[in-house]
This record gives sequence, C-alpha cells and structure tokens, in this order.
Amino acid sequence: MLSPRPAICTLPAYHPPLAGRDGLRLDFNENTVGCSPRVLERLRGLTLEDLARYPERAPVEEKVADFLAVPSSELLLTNGVDEAIHLLCGTYLEPGDEALIVVPTYSMYRIYIMAAGAKVISVAAGEDFQFPVDDILDRISPRTRLIAIANPNNPTGTVASSEDLLQIARSAPDAAVLVDEAYFEFYGQTLLPKRGNIPNLFVARTFSKAYGMAGLRIGVLVGDADQMRTVRLVSSPYNVNAVALACLPDALADQAYIVHYVTEVKEARRRLERMFESAEIRFWPSHANFVLARVAPDKLGAASFLERMRRRGILVRDRSADPGCEGCVRITLGPSEHTDRLLASLQETIEELGIAQGASRS
Amino acid sequence: MLSPRPAICTLPAYHPPLAGRDGLRLDFNENTVGCSPRVLERLRGLTLEDLARYPERAPVEEKVADFLAVPSSELLLTNGVDEAIHLLCGTYLEPGDEALIVVPTYSMYRIYIMAAGAKVISVAAGEDFQFPVDDILDRISPRTRLIAIANPNNPTGTVASSEDLLQIARSAPDAAVLVDEAYFEFYGQTLLPKRGNIPNLFVARTFSKAYGMAGLRIGVLVGDADQMRTVRLVSSPYNVNAVALACLPDALADQAYIVHYVTEVKEARRRLERMFESAEIRFWPSHANFVLARVAPDKLGAASFLERMRRRGILVRDRSADPGCEGCVRITLGPSEHTDRLLASLQETIEELGIAQGASRS
Repeated sequence: MLSPRPAICTLPAYHPPLAGRDGLRLDFNENTVGCSPRVLERLRGLTLEDLARYPERAPVEEKVADFLAVPSSELLLTNGVDEAIHLLCGTYLEPGDEALIVVPTYSMYRIYIMAAGAKVISVAAGEDFQFPVDDILDRISPRTRLIAIANPNNPTGTVASSEDLLQIARSAPDAAVLVDEAYFEFYGQTLLPKRGNIPNLFVARTFSKAYGMAGLRIGVLVGDADQMRTVRLVSSPYNVNAVALACLPDALADQAYIVHYVTEVKEARRRLERMFESAEIRFWPSHANFVLARVAPDKLGAASFLERMRRRGILVRDRSADPGCEGCVRITLGPSEHTDRLLASLQETIEELGIAQGASRS
Repeated sequence: MLSPRPAICTLPAYHPPLAGRDGLRLDFNENTVGCSPRVLERLRGLTLEDLARYPERAPVEEKVADFLAVPSSELLLTNGVDEAIHLLCGTYLEPGDEALIVVPTYSMYRIYIMAAGAKVISVAAGEDFQFPVDDILDRISPRTRLIAIANPNNPTGTVASSEDLLQIARSAPDAAVLVDEAYFEFYGQTLLPKRGNIPNLFVARTFSKAYGMAGLRIGVLVGDADQMRTVRLVSSPYNVNAVALACLPDALADQAYIVHYVTEVKEARRRLERMFESAEIRFWPSHANFVLARVAPDKLGAASFLERMRRRGILVRDRSADPGCEGCVRITLGPSEHTDRLLASLQETIEELGIAQGASRS
C-alpha cells in the first residue's frame, strides 16, 4: 500500500482562513489599497502570446538585481517566499538534521523543515517577544543545518539587530541562515548590503506585502553565488508566472507609490498603537504593517473579538494559537480611510465587550 | 562550511533555451496562437484588489473538479505540472528509494527524483520508442516508490495503452504512479475515468499546452482523496497565482476554442508527417502537438538543421542529447498558416542541407 514518507505524515495542515473574506481585509497583511496602477496598466497590455509562452525569468532577474544592488548570480526569483523556504529546506536539510526557528513566527518554516524530515528546534522569543539571540546561539549544534528568522517577525512585528543576525550566521557556518525580510519596507533596515562574504547567509524579500502583489506570487531569494547555483538546480525554470515577471519591473519603477503607502502604514501604526495605549490593551510595538495585541485573556475571548469585528465588516487575524499569543489578534494596517474605519469599529468592540482597561494585560 | 545535500550536488542543470526566441516558436510545444480570447478579456478585467489579495485556490478547484468529473477532494491545482512532480517526489521518495522513468522523456522527472535523494531507474523505450511495459514490470522492486510516465510521451509523441498503465499501477501498489497527461487533448484518451479504486495512481493535466496558458503556470494533479490530503500538506496554500485562478474557468468554458485548435494541430500533424514520409526522413507518428524526426545522423547535423531553420525564422528543438534521439529535432505543430511557413522552410532546409532521401533513416 502506498504510504507517504514518515516525515510527511507528521506535517500539520496549514489552512489559512481564505474563504469568505468579505469586508475590510486586515487579516493577511496584504496591501489593502492594491499595487501601483502601473502594474495594472502593464497587465492590461499583455497579449495572448505573452500568456501562451513559457515565462523567462532571467531578464527580470537582471532588473531586480540592479534594484537590490546585488549581482544577478546571487539572486533567484521565486513563486513567493514560500517557494524560497521550500527550496532552501530541499537543498540543505536531510532527515535527522536540525533546524532552528524562533517562535512565534511564520508557519511555513516549520512545515517545510518537517517536510524535509529534519527536526524543528523551536527557540521561544524572550520577554515582549524580544529576539532571543543568546538562546539561538546556545542551540546551534553541529547538526544545525538551517536557521530561519523573519525580520521583522510575523506575527509579533518585533525585530532582530543586524549584529545579532550576522553573529548567528557566523556562528553556524554549516547552516543555511535565512533572514526573511518580507516586511522590510515598513522597517527600513536590511541585511542585504551587510552580507559581506558570509556564504551561508540568505535574504528573502517579497512583493506580496508593501508592493501589493500577493496574488501574482513573486519573491526573491539572495545568497552567495555558489550556493544559489545549487539552489537554482532544484527550482523549476518556470516557477514564476509570466504576468508577475512582466509586471515586476513596473512595480519597482514606481517607488513613489511604495513610499506613499509605507508612510500611510506608519501613520496608521502610530494611531493604532496610541489607541491601544489609551485603552490599556497590551500590544507589541511593531516594525511591520500590522500590530499584534492581546484583546482577551484567552482563545475564546479572541474569537469573540474577531466575530464582533467581522460583524462590523472588518477582518482581523486570530493568533491565539501561536506560542505566547494567547488572546491575541493581529491587525493589518493601511491608509487613513481604512484606519478611520478600523479605529471606530475597534472602539465600539472594546466598549461592547467591556474590555476593561488593563484587564487584558499579561 | 555550508554544503548542499549530497543528492542535490548530483543534479543536472536544466537550462531550456528560453533566451532570444525570436521567430515562429515551434520549440516548446506551446500553443502558438495563444489561449482563448476569453482568458485575455478576463485578465483585463482584473482589479488592483484582485492582484493584492492572496490567491484562493479552493473555489477554482471545485470548477476544475466539475469539468474533469472527479470529486474536488481528489484534485489539487499546481504551479504547472512541474510542481505536481515536485510534490509527489517530496511526498513519497526517501533517500535510497527507487523511481522508474521511461527514457527518453520529460527532463523534470529525473531532476525531482534525484533532488529527493532517490535512485533513478531508467527503462529504455523499445523499438520505435514503443512503451516498454514488460521491462517496467520487470524493474519494479520492493524499493520502487515512484513511477513517472508521460502519456503521450515527450519528446517522442508515442503512447502507452490504458491497460498497460493500469497493470503497472496495480503491480506497484507501494509506489506513486504518475501518468502525466500534459498532451491529453491531442490524443483524446485519458486514465481519469479508469482510475477505479487504485489508490496509488495519479493523473496530471496541464493548461500550458492545448489551452495556451504556459505563461500563467497552472496544472492539475488528481489522485486518491487520502493520498491527495497528504500531498496537499506539502504544498503552499498560495502555490497558484490569482491571475491563473481567475482565468482558468473562462478557459474551460471555451471548449470550442480548444476543439478548433486541436483540429488544426491534428491536420498540421498529418501534413508534416506526410512531408517527412515523402522526403524519407525518419519520424515517429505522434499523438501530441509535436513530431520528433531524425533530420541528421548526429548531434552536429541536428544543430546545423536547427541553425538553418532559425535563419528562416523558425525555432525547433534539438533533442539529440536524449537517449535514442541522435540527430533528432522536435517540431511543435500549430494552425495552418504556421504549418505553411514550417513546411516551406523545412523543404528549403532539406534541399539546402542535401538531406538525401533515406539517408537519415536509423
């Protein structure tokens, strides 16, 4: 009888709540106003022939390499960052290897590590979700073959310093160290120019967040040229679709759009954080386009909060099941008109549920 | 020092000749007239929001399941068939396992089998590239965990009977048996309704060929519901982009377009095969949208042929490096206006190179 590999049988199902997302969608950290209009214009100019041809990644990789100021030999475009994670796990992890992640963090690291048959070593974030650099350094062993760190982290919005990340990469020379900068634009700090000659350090970026192209599926993985040559062997030459490839240069060219959106997100972040402060609701200062807040003491309370917000036409994400996130929701930020709606609904929900000032503090 | 898994170090590089494809592109088995105009219309109606949202696969899977007359629990949409192959290898193959392929065949089977650390057992096709059912049955062992068969096969255009394929699947109950029907529409026979209760049998389809959507990257994997539940665990929930998902139902709805295109391809196939017959050039009768022909005794001759055709503005694919395909090229078929151009250029090239009647016969 056909049975999957033992490692696969242990995988958790990852079913993000994608269905029935009616309302203001502040649940997936998407850009809620959408990508640059130039992208849409470019998309509408595509021909039947553009869709019928196999996509050609290389010329667009040259342009992205120019934009990121790295040689194109160090760069691979991927079908979202998910594929980049999958490729790294497939390239470096054997059954029996160990891989480190900091929890809570993005779900897919664990899934692809487990799919490779490796052991997930979860290092808990410190107080206030501080980056646990010493604990990570302590857990690095000769069997550590991958370390995946989101910076800024999701769902906490917290960050690690470049120094800490570089120290980790240098301390684990036999491990692929992935720094996932999916939320880079909202933070402004990047390891890209600081990679120096650390051959085991990889940096990922996405166009799903600030760039508003989550539907098009396009991400970037940057690493040492020799390592990338190997990673590329595992990827399909046709991994990124032609629409994403056609549109990406236009998205990159419209930096004014990104700057404007990021400015709005940062203003929304300040407004939301101020509101949480005045309501004495526990939250964690964020460097991304979302804020994590404890709106209830437990999962049940968070679910109730979610439901009240949904009735007001606003979707936020339940993160209660994440380690250290009991009673927490994650709220995506956007432009001021969305923030106005969010804050009004939030105020009503807080009053309705009688979230007592300070009651939800951990 | 960071080193990839040993299995990855042995992978061959797969660099399809995608760059500089100017001319009539009869080299990638794409639909040379493009997809249904309804697809383009749908694409042009997409909004910024459609691009900014994470894609939702499930509702489109329902529609594809209806179209294929299988339950949606037995179906997964994939980022092209390449991803389906990758997922099957990742789900079932451990280092040390064996996987069977018939050669020559599609390159990516070998790559993903090797990436999983499994051993590729290549079974040579018989005389005239006949499907080597007995040799395959002979090579099935307790370590056989995957068998990948393209039907019709690429680059030969030859087919295996449903009976042979079902016998193989029943004879290797511990192996995932993938029947890749990427070229189904040009052949007309499918295993889909004959899968019965064989839980280890998988069927793949693509929308890159007859449907003319290679740029959009969308394929389908069908298998036993329990097995598919496991395969789905390994795939990213966002593997297929939103444009492909939005357009696919429109592509499926326009069956008249597919029927018309397939009729033209079959007529082109007859014309090209007749021409090869009269020129006494060896070819293999094809059930796909391409024909394999031996235009020279060796690789050098095939390269020369390719170059002459390219000068006439027509790209065909060199298959000389495939086992048993010395001096062979593969030519994609299309509508009559493309066939007119193809045959005229072919005639000139044959005369120019002095391909003597019968000289290239094997």
